[in-house]
Amino acid sequence: MFTTSAVAAPPVRVCQERLAASRTVRSIVVNSGNANALTGKQGRRDAETMVARLEERCGGPGLVLSTGVIGVPLPIDRVLAGIDAASAELSPQNEKVSRAILTTDTGPKTVAVSVETEGGRFTVGGIAKGSGMIHPNMATMLAVIATDAPIDPVALKTILARAVDRSFHEISVDGDTSTNDAVLLLAGQPSPTADVDLDVLEAAITHVARDLASQIVRDGEGVSRVMEIEVHSAKSPDEARSVAESIARSSLVKTALAGGDPNWGRILSAAGASGAPISPSGLTLELGDHVVFEKGAVVSADERELAETFAADEVSVRLGLGRGDALARMVTTDLTRRYVEINSEYTT
Amino acid sequence: MFTTSAVAAPPVRVCQERLAASRTVRSIVVNSGNANALTGKQGRRDAETMVARLEERCGGPGLVLSTGVIGVPLPIDRVLAGIDAASAELSPQNEKVSRAILTTDTGPKTVAVSVETEGGRFTVGGIAKGSGMIHPNMATMLAVIATDAPIDPVALKTILARAVDRSFHEISVDGDTSTNDAVLLLAGQPSPTADVDLDVLEAAITHVARDLASQIVRDGEGVSRVMEIEVHSAKSPDEARSVAESIARSSLVKTALAGGDPNWGRILSAAGASGAPISPSGLTLELGDHVVFEKGAVVSADERELAETFAADEVSVRLGLGRGDALARMVTTDLTRRYVEINSEYTT
Repeated sequence: MFTTSAVAAPPVRVCQERLAASRTVRSIVVNSGNANALTGKQGRRDAETMVARLEERCGGPGLVLSTGVIGVPLPIDRVLAGIDAASAELSPQNEKVSRAILTTDTGPKTVAVSVETEGGRFTVGGIAKGSGMIHPNMATMLAVIATDAPIDPVALKTILARAVDRSFHEISVDGDTSTNDAVLLLAGQPSPTADVDLDVLEAAITHVARDLASQIVRDGEGVSRVMEIEVHSAKSPDEARSVAESIARSSLVKTALAGGDPNWGRILSAAGASGAPISPSGLTLELGDHVVFEKGAVVSADERELAETFAADEVSVRLGLGRGDALARMVTTDLTRRYVEINSEYTT
Repeated sequence: MFTTSAVAAPPVRVCQERLAASRTVRSIVVNSGNANALTGKQGRRDAETMVARLEERCGGPGLVLSTGVIGVPLPIDRVLAGIDAASAELSPQNEKVSRAILTTDTGPKTVAVSVETEGGRFTVGGIAKGSGMIHPNMATMLAVIATDAPIDPVALKTILARAVDRSFHEISVDGDTSTNDAVLLLAGQPSPTADVDLDVLEAAITHVARDLASQIVRDGEGVSRVMEIEVHSAKSPDEARSVAESIARSSLVKTALAGGDPNWGRILSAAGASGAPISPSGLTLELGDHVVFEKGAVVSADERELAETFAADEVSVRLGLGRGDALARMVTTDLTRRYVEINSEYTT
């Protein structure tokens, strides 16, 4: 799954075209420091050159992911030398890749789980980098998840879409969609005889995706606190999602969170601006365990207890719309002075 | 014209209902410090009580606007005493209203122009407050524009919609739509014999609206620099607007602006995330007088000159989409540490 940006970077386009032709993948090359985005025809040639060198060294079909500065041509000679050097070090034990793909991350993001199924014991492992766009534009959220379980490509695509919906699509740092976002899921070659329990594997893959997404949002730029938003009693999942996203993107909610200020008026105001046809009389809002607004009326809550709830590292907010039974979740970060510093103090 | 928020405040609802019944208005009361928003049935009763007292003191029909904290019941006794006191001081010379409506504004926002028409000399004057939501939630942008020219209510409504589209809809500070936003336009009673040049008056009203909008955006919370965004060569005005808004709302564009960093990759990335079906090969981007990206390719520009362009108080950015001849403009502010401080350091 790739970014929906209209100016998706050349490596994203190359991956999409190759996967449209064949779902078989044997190797992936990732470079950080330069996103090869908005680099025109040269960028396209560079992405293809990277794949060609990768396939030569590691076997193909290959894919390419890039993350880093936007609008600067790739130093292709250095990148090719890097592919040569890295391919000589490949081994099942080598974890360097989880660090090599980082940009402003404060540490590597990895997770692995094993599951026992009727068809045998399988492992699902993943690495990721992100998030926040920085210095200048390291936004790119990249994740690669792999399993040794043999899964048919069609099933794999469905599983990935569902897992991403319940993980990477539930986090917001900037509210910005980057030029290079990509999540890849690789599985073993399926065979007609293999008896694989897809439900168990989907649960494991979803767990890995959620764990990586959680690591990303907690490592967001300048983040001191995260808010888990649940919007329930919506008319449809899309409605729930749009209200949750409006809250997650609001600068005013995010600055209140930074200040540890249980300023719930901003949460309802952001919900009201989402475009969903909600009505104050249907709304119920809980901050942590405290109901602060119910069916159109303010509920008195202990100010000190509310302040304590908002001073925690993780703040949970539940908003009921009173319109149905659909639900959506988002995790957002606070907007701190440190975020502004990180993103403004770069000078060209 | 009022906020499109689904949780619009009781005073907004009261105004909308009264204007639906009759377009005649003789008096307006504005309180600041409390938005009377998300205050349920009590809020509704309070807004109606304010209008009743206003009409008693100043004559009706009356309207009510509120701005300030959300979710706190109005101290109605103090408000009514305030209406009594203020109504005793009414005079054509009294400018106190332009200061009384302020919240976190650093100063009053007023403008007046006179125009000579065939039908006589008329004046258009306006006052406004805003913007930025703060401490806790002073977001509400309010503006009242009045003219002594006699204009029919139907024409007035059309003129206001067009003027707002070219003024208050072209500015963004937070990207948040508040519960109380309102712009009122009042004109003299039309008579069948009056010969009024509507084009000249519309130009004057638009000028006043644009001037107030400009004062608001430049007085945005913690603002050190503004960016004037023009998106041209779009397929439709809506497309141009959606790309301009995506750029204006991007935290990454706004932090780059705060740092005086000509980080144009973030501008194109924000444009690409707008949902408009643009293509890098059609894009042309100018920062000030410098073309930095043209038809899919980076154009080398003098780094020092670009940095100077971005260090100015006003930065102009022009993005061509290469898809048609529609155009939209937005003015946005930088996202500074001071903005975060103002909006996070309040504690309940």
